[in-house]
Amino acid sequence: MMTSPQKFHGWLAHDPSAATGNLKWESFTPRPFQSTDIDIKITHCGICGSDIHTLRSGWGPTHYPVCVGHEIVGHIVRLGDSPTSTSRFRVGDRVGVGAQVSSCLRVDCEECSSGREQHCGKGFVGTYNGKYPDGSWSYGGYADFVRVPAHFAVKIPEQLKSVDAAPMMCGGITVYAPLKDNGAGPGKKVGIVGLGGLGHFGVLFAKALRCDKVVVISRSRNKAKDASELGADDFIATNEDEKWERTHSKSLDLIISTVSSPDMPLSGYMRLLRTNGQFIQVGAPEDKLPAIAAFALIGKGCKIGGSQIGSPKQIEEMLQFAADSRIKPWVQQRSMSEANQSVVDMEDGKARYRYVLSNEDTRDQARL
Amino acid sequence: MMTSPQKFHGWLAHDPSAATGNLKWESFTPRPFQSTDIDIKITHCGICGSDIHTLRSGWGPTHYPVCVGHEIVGHIVRLGDSPTSTSRFRVGDRVGVGAQVSSCLRVDCEECSSGREQHCGKGFVGTYNGKYPDGSWSYGGYADFVRVPAHFAVKIPEQLKSVDAAPMMCGGITVYAPLKDNGAGPGKKVGIVGLGGLGHFGVLFAKALRCDKVVVISRSRNKAKDASELGADDFIATNEDEKWERTHSKSLDLIISTVSSPDMPLSGYMRLLRTNGQFIQVGAPEDKLPAIAAFALIGKGCKIGGSQIGSPKQIEEMLQFAADSRIKPWVQQRSMSEANQSVVDMEDGKARYRYVLSNEDTRDQARL
Repeated sequence: MMTSPQKFHGWLAHDPSAATGNLKWESFTPRPFQSTDIDIKITHCGICGSDIHTLRSGWGPTHYPVCVGHEIVGHIVRLGDSPTSTSRFRVGDRVGVGAQVSSCLRVDCEECSSGREQHCGKGFVGTYNGKYPDGSWSYGGYADFVRVPAHFAVKIPEQLKSVDAAPMMCGGITVYAPLKDNGAGPGKKVGIVGLGGLGHFGVLFAKALRCDKVVVISRSRNKAKDASELGADDFIATNEDEKWERTHSKSLDLIISTVSSPDMPLSGYMRLLRTNGQFIQVGAPEDKLPAIAAFALIGKGCKIGGSQIGSPKQIEEMLQFAADSRIKPWVQQRSMSEANQSVVDMEDGKARYRYVLSNEDTRDQARL
Repeated sequence: MMTSPQKFHGWLAHDPSAATGNLKWESFTPRPFQSTDIDIKITHCGICGSDIHTLRSGWGPTHYPVCVGHEIVGHIVRLGDSPTSTSRFRVGDRVGVGAQVSSCLRVDCEECSSGREQHCGKGFVGTYNGKYPDGSWSYGGYADFVRVPAHFAVKIPEQLKSVDAAPMMCGGITVYAPLKDNGAGPGKKVGIVGLGGLGHFGVLFAKALRCDKVVVISRSRNKAKDASELGADDFIATNEDEKWERTHSKSLDLIISTVSSPDMPLSGYMRLLRTNGQFIQVGAPEDKLPAIAAFALIGKGCKIGGSQIGSPKQIEEMLQFAADSRIKPWVQQRSMSEANQSVVDMEDGKARYRYVLSNEDTRDQARL
């Protein structure tokens, strides 16, 4: 049986300059192996906007050195011997890890005990830049190996390619969860604000869920052709279409917003909602939403909500749904060695629509 | 059979000074009687905050003269001959009318055809200061008679006293609807922001719905004793209790806010919500809600929504529930002749918790 090394290697950031392409490929020591842990030999890791926020300390001070990346797929190379945690896995299994690697998992935690680990208020640990209860730090997926509690790994269905599954682990689940939780499906018309990594998954999932209509809402018309090819039925360019709020008034049951800024036209978005419609904000949480008139909510009985990734169970459900529906995300595979350039390109908005770093292009596959 | 007079009489407002107690008891001509209409001889009418907003043109210019009042109970004295509209009623029936008297009622209206008439975008007519499609204006319940489309009248269950049923027609349904629509009941903990006419109904209904806990949230502790007598289990005074957001963090599943102002501590309210909790704004819709951080919604998967009165069907349901649960609102009956003083007292915040004007104190009951 293959085992994992004492030291892992990854792209480490030592200061905010890392966000501009200054990552260093170095060795690091993972946290002490627990009986509930698994080690994964990483084949793929998607590049998420959160990675760059964290690299540059955009969400408060980052604990450097940090190794980012939380859209991880690979194979299990070591299994802890705690049967409740790891017995559903075997060495060699292909698994994925998303943006969360730990929660309190106590029976008296109302979130963990009800399958909402992503909202655990006591023990949420992110996949990188996160501190475990024992004081050790989490390291992410721009690396050769990753060590995580088994509870937060999920098996990848056979039909899904690793390069496609990787960006679903954060980007995919972030939009899949609010679509499902808010009834996206036949009879419903859905809007997706922003066509980036998250938004492109929003279109793919909303169409696969057989929503009556899927509309992309963006500032400009630049990505209208892509939206159409992804399956979107309509496109609204809020900086270009005159009176778009009026033209499309009361046309959508659910809007998933993957962009957030204090100057976004939130009141306009609300006008797009049908009676009892919902607007769900995901993605970049550092900003305030614009103030809106109470009447915008009361008059139509609408809601504004938020959603944060998904539980391991919901990630599993999503992956199976993606496999069954033959979801094909638009990904650009890059070699893990190109992490620095990929981070820069991602930050420049060049991804169409997700970069996925792969160790398979550059490393000896015979090892597994 | 008693019929209604050619002219009705009511407390008319001719300009914004009416809000300070300058209503005039005068005759007015109701709109031409339609086959779908009923005339009601009013016995009771509650005083709602909306009345005063409208009297002083607080929500944009009011069409004077106006006769306000939309918490009406009385007896039918005339029935139109359109069987689909009026056949469920007989002359003499005791009925109530709330804040809405018309909507388009077309089968191709997604709101009207699905029992959400209160959100009809095409044909909503308020009970006063509203313009019917034929150009006539609606007159409300500070009067001896009212003429309304039968669709928007509901029978009052026998067990309910008229003086108690009247303020439920707007104040009651405004909080009952969002409680029901958002799952208030066993296992749920509910907060009610503001203890006024609406808030006091919120406590009564939430308790009757057997919520695990009902908490009143107010600025000061002035009404803590009343809250307790109404059945509230706890009281939070946001201007007096130090660190109340922290003390009561994640303690409530649902908050119904009956007050609205741009300086309300919305972020603090959000901290009170449990994971996937909801904050529903009702009442005074003229203000903007404060801007809040997107993270306040995302981190716990919470929602902020609005709710507006209720459909005739939901009003019927509420009245039956109130009768079955022996809901006893705190009302102060006043003679219809005291409308001016009652408006002034209401505006001064003296109501505990609803003034109800009654024609029975002053008028010849033998007429019906």
